[in-house]
Amino acid sequence: MLPYKSLIQLNRDSNVSLYVQLCNSFIQLISNGTLKPSDILPSTRVLSELTGISRNTVKVAYEELMSQGWAESVERKGIFVLSKLPELSDKRKHTSISHLEEKPDSFKWNNPFTEKFAVEDFQKAVLTIDDGFPDVRLTPVDLLMREYRSISKRFYGKNFLKYGHPKGSERLRMALCRYLSETRGLAVSPENIIITKGSQMGIYLATQLLLTSSDKIAVGVSNYRSADEIFKYSGAALLRIPVDEFGMDIDYLADTLKHQKIKAVYIIPHHHFPTTVTMSMERRLKLLKLAEEYCFAIIEDDYDFDFHYNNKPYIPLASIDHNQNVIYIGSITKTFAPALRIGFLISGSQFVNACASLRQLIDKQGDSLIEEAFASLYDTGEMERHYRKSIKIYRQRRDLFCEILETNFKDVITFKTPEGGMAVWSLFDKKINLIELANRAEKKGLKISDGTFYNNELFNPNGLRLGFAALNEREIEQSLSILRQII
Amino acid sequence: MLPYKSLIQLNRDSNVSLYVQLCNSFIQLISNGTLKPSDILPSTRVLSELTGISRNTVKVAYEELMSQGWAESVERKGIFVLSKLPELSDKRKHTSISHLEEKPDSFKWNNPFTEKFAVEDFQKAVLTIDDGFPDVRLTPVDLLMREYRSISKRFYGKNFLKYGHPKGSERLRMALCRYLSETRGLAVSPENIIITKGSQMGIYLATQLLLTSSDKIAVGVSNYRSADEIFKYSGAALLRIPVDEFGMDIDYLADTLKHQKIKAVYIIPHHHFPTTVTMSMERRLKLLKLAEEYCFAIIEDDYDFDFHYNNKPYIPLASIDHNQNVIYIGSITKTFAPALRIGFLISGSQFVNACASLRQLIDKQGDSLIEEAFASLYDTGEMERHYRKSIKIYRQRRDLFCEILETNFKDVITFKTPEGGMAVWSLFDKKINLIELANRAEKKGLKISDGTFYNNELFNPNGLRLGFAALNEREIEQSLSILRQII
Repeated sequence: MLPYKSLIQLNRDSNVSLYVQLCNSFIQLISNGTLKPSDILPSTRVLSELTGISRNTVKVAYEELMSQGWAESVERKGIFVLSKLPELSDKRKHTSISHLEEKPDSFKWNNPFTEKFAVEDFQKAVLTIDDGFPDVRLTPVDLLMREYRSISKRFYGKNFLKYGHPKGSERLRMALCRYLSETRGLAVSPENIIITKGSQMGIYLATQLLLTSSDKIAVGVSNYRSADEIFKYSGAALLRIPVDEFGMDIDYLADTLKHQKIKAVYIIPHHHFPTTVTMSMERRLKLLKLAEEYCFAIIEDDYDFDFHYNNKPYIPLASIDHNQNVIYIGSITKTFAPALRIGFLISGSQFVNACASLRQLIDKQGDSLIEEAFASLYDTGEMERHYRKSIKIYRQRRDLFCEILETNFKDVITFKTPEGGMAVWSLFDKKINLIELANRAEKKGLKISDGTFYNNELFNPNGLRLGFAALNEREIEQSLSILRQII
Repeated sequence: MLPYKSLIQLNRDSNVSLYVQLCNSFIQLISNGTLKPSDILPSTRVLSELTGISRNTVKVAYEELMSQGWAESVERKGIFVLSKLPELSDKRKHTSISHLEEKPDSFKWNNPFTEKFAVEDFQKAVLTIDDGFPDVRLTPVDLLMREYRSISKRFYGKNFLKYGHPKGSERLRMALCRYLSETRGLAVSPENIIITKGSQMGIYLATQLLLTSSDKIAVGVSNYRSADEIFKYSGAALLRIPVDEFGMDIDYLADTLKHQKIKAVYIIPHHHFPTTVTMSMERRLKLLKLAEEYCFAIIEDDYDFDFHYNNKPYIPLASIDHNQNVIYIGSITKTFAPALRIGFLISGSQFVNACASLRQLIDKQGDSLIEEAFASLYDTGEMERHYRKSIKIYRQRRDLFCEILETNFKDVITFKTPEGGMAVWSLFDKKINLIELANRAEKKGLKISDGTFYNNELFNPNGLRLGFAALNEREIEQSLSILRQII
């Protein structure tokens, strides 16, 4: 007989009843080959003595085992492992797996993600100069919670826990129509909007519908890496176009289009990532004309629109695009809190419907309750109050941050004060190795990027985006003082 | 001079200052071709008289217009539309677009979603026999809100508003490890889990990594339509395998594999959709052996595990799979509330890492705060209390529902009382046209499916899943009485 006393481990404090635990233990023994088809199981009396549980419980466990098709009772002989079970190979050594290490030959799949899996977990609270994120301490999360709670308590509110519209909350789409029309002259109706999980999902949906592996998309020589990765995942080729202080070089693009076909161009006209430049109006209009002439889509990623410190921001290409070439993508996430992933995509209704169909495949829909709560914040004017308040604070932080850079880092960092956004694009002296710098900073308790995120096959500037928005004055002084020490 | 008085509409109650509104009005007039390059703008005095706003405000608006690159000042002559702007075609008719109707020729894209865009919006509160959804009125949403709020108020809680781990909350993954081990003998570590937006996203991620257009996947002749659509979207071919009362016919699959290669098989062993049958243990073991032999992946969709009314549920294939062929997908959504989209995927750590990389492309990460709140509900035992309570109520509802079906519908509906899940698979008399039935029901205030969702090229059973879980006793009696009247 097998050493059942050691093979069967029961936990009397568990929520799971003992007979289920016992039954599951036998299933493990059969499935890992310790018990084989037609093996006899110990009698209820013997097992009861070995394990210290009542014969009745053992009996119920055996009945369960039989009802699940693992064992059979033979009259006057006992209970046996089902004879017609296929004999499984002996994998006893694997029974205590606590961490599945992939067997390379278990099944075939292609890993398109060749680079090391990178996790930037910003939730650990150390002093960080980030990439340009909002200060979550300013986020009126209490207001959001209050709306969230109040909606979920109302009679009709429970309905938002059911399946909803794959384009997202109608109330939020209506609120956005008003907000976008007032702030940027963009006149659309709710049918033209799909609420997404951040601008990231907007880029993903548009890309999946536009690009296949035989297509080309034009992007900046320097560009937002996460967008590049979405385009590459579609199999499309990236056509890199130079970017200068007025944004993407549209004359260069026009020349390229004479002998190359593209399906789309991706731009962040307001402010380009990582260099924070704004595209000039002249180039915007030229680009719209080119798109009309060559029938390509303009993916306008305008995640940064709401944060502009000097003049009013430029109105988006989408607002002056009468030929409907622009797919307009925005973010609420980026202005509120990165973890509350809400954004939107705006285009012709057919394209938006197809985005909604694809979105249904991916995750059915967004979080209706959160969407309703955000709609309330827009309707009550709380969102605009939040924007105004944060812009004021971020402008002060930008000014202090740039002042210190100007005073203390003149010899090692070249930069231009950004007109908007949450980061300063900083070019470091070529002698400074940014990977080593990030390592040294970490030892002093400061987290900074090592710059690799901004590089690509054509762009290797020895630069960093230094985010100022998430740091208060004391933290700005502290972190820049550490940075200065280690350079 | 243009009729500026009627062309420029200002809203004095708006949050947007008048000069911005005025500036934006001119941008619209220029971009839609009403004003052309080198056209002169009215003087500040004239415009002030026409619009009734101060000359100073007009001056600021013109300065803004010039700083954005739309206009230029010529000394002693006035302010002109920038001469070097490209002349845009006259699209005046389109200026009052309130609903973008796609121009078919604006840009090229392929719509893979040929079927009519279908929206089933369950948020409208009418009497509904749904597909088998939980009753959101039983959901302890207050408890979730309390946790949500309490976490967001704590000092460290704000960190969950920042970017987090793309595999999801570590605390929730640890809670799931405990829960899955206790309830279904599944021993995994947090590295093997990625938190997804419902089981839907789990299927999407796995499919994208496994299947290309040259691959085949085996699925049931009857199958969950949303999964089929994900597989089709990847371009893979669907190999349909018969399903009987013991689940998918694995002998048939074995025969097929002798001359066909597959990358994966998709099963819902517990309970098959739409027919609610449970796969027998014998077939489960045979399938595991086949997967090992032919090196394919088993996508085990176990969204329904937590709702079983008779015996204890069968333990999943994943728990007895020692060769690691199983990709295990589960849902918390389905047991809590459809709109709170949380689920998980479990596999070898490399595969899960690749899922996380793809997830970063799609939407970066899930909602960390909600994930933390759910972790608390698991840790405090509230989730299990919720399951126990709902199972008890759903069992009563199932019994009442089936009793009425048995008594009043014997002549028109064939069904078997389901052992678990939230719906009764009901075959209607061939004479009954389900599309007409759904129409007639709607007129009587009852929403039911027209059955097309369950059909495919090989399966056309004249059947419906009748969901009983979301209806209380009075609603069950009411809705079945309406159904009886109209048959």
